[in-house]
Amino acid sequence: MANYNVVPLQRLVEQFERLPGIGSKTAQRLAYFVLNMPEEQAKEFSQAIIEAHEKIRRCEVCCNLSDREKCPVCSSPTRDRSTICVVETPRDALAIEGTGEYKGTYHVLHGVISPLNGMGPDQLCIKELLARLNNAEVSEVIMATNPTVEGEATAMYLSRLFKPLGVKITRLAYGIPVGGDLEYADDVTLARALEGRSEL
Amino acid sequence: MANYNVVPLQRLVEQFERLPGIGSKTAQRLAYFVLNMPEEQAKEFSQAIIEAHEKIRRCEVCCNLSDREKCPVCSSPTRDRSTICVVETPRDALAIEGTGEYKGTYHVLHGVISPLNGMGPDQLCIKELLARLNNAEVSEVIMATNPTVEGEATAMYLSRLFKPLGVKITRLAYGIPVGGDLEYADDVTLARALEGRSEL
Repeated sequence: MANYNVVPLQRLVEQFERLPGIGSKTAQRLAYFVLNMPEEQAKEFSQAIIEAHEKIRRCEVCCNLSDREKCPVCSSPTRDRSTICVVETPRDALAIEGTGEYKGTYHVLHGVISPLNGMGPDQLCIKELLARLNNAEVSEVIMATNPTVEGEATAMYLSRLFKPLGVKITRLAYGIPVGGDLEYADDVTLARALEGRSEL
Repeated sequence: MANYNVVPLQRLVEQFERLPGIGSKTAQRLAYFVLNMPEEQAKEFSQAIIEAHEKIRRCEVCCNLSDREKCPVCSSPTRDRSTICVVETPRDALAIEGTGEYKGTYHVLHGVISPLNGMGPDQLCIKELLARLNNAEVSEVIMATNPTVEGEATAMYLSRLFKPLGVKITRLAYGIPVGGDLEYADDVTLARALEGRSEL
């Protein structure tokens, strides 16, 4: 393994191998690509990693990632503060934001309740959400956790926790994905789609 | 696009998008992963990029990548210095080294002759190869450039250049890949396989 004795290269390959979905062949290809970059670009890349770590923190309101005290959504004057969409991760918030249909605010839990992975309610940003709900402003909480066992359990846990506060709690609709095929939909999804049918 | 206003994160996503085979969704996933790494690991990653650039240079004999003056192959006392395998890139050398079958040395051209991409013989490490051939030691040069138009042209160019030196010049065998299927082999490969048939 000739090049594997080239320590700095090998170290760079290992760094790429750590990333999700990057196998050893891809890691090698990426490492060589970075090595062939102009030095200026490599420095930018290296700097971007450090800066992301140093400058990004959690929004003090919704716990989403931000480079200021409040994230752009929470500091926007045009967003509807009476609706909070609860998501597992910042990327989920980004996905909903991508639809362009949602005008309320978000709350990022940074995980789901998952005893197997050692994640209890205390590890999630639930305290911050409770603080927001104690504000009279909020009228609806949309549970937008993933439709997995853990996501469901978290949504159930939170809705029980929030019931006494008298806030309306909703859940994203389940059903056949748009453009999907009934034939290929799984039983559970199909059953949920039937259950949640609406009048035309 | 909530998170896209988070400048340091967006910058990191862009850096990943530059890498080959990484689309915008994957770049996003990788950037979030790096952001969730412990700070120690992020620093290591950042450092590995810079170090690879600073410490890696070309072996003064074979032009392969190395962190010392001579690469591990060229400085090994057990390698057969009479055979030189000419490859396009360090990764090609690595692939051949991976077979464990080759005991000679390498020479990395760092590209192929490709007038369309502005690559002429002067941009390749041909000077260094000529210097090695003028050594009496070398008895065979194996042309292991890729079986593409440019790879072929480069192999032809080099073999004409080296003919006067009286060295034996060989080319890797063409044929059906092991485990391949005749039915799916393309015409050119099949024709070459017929042409290069050997007695059983």
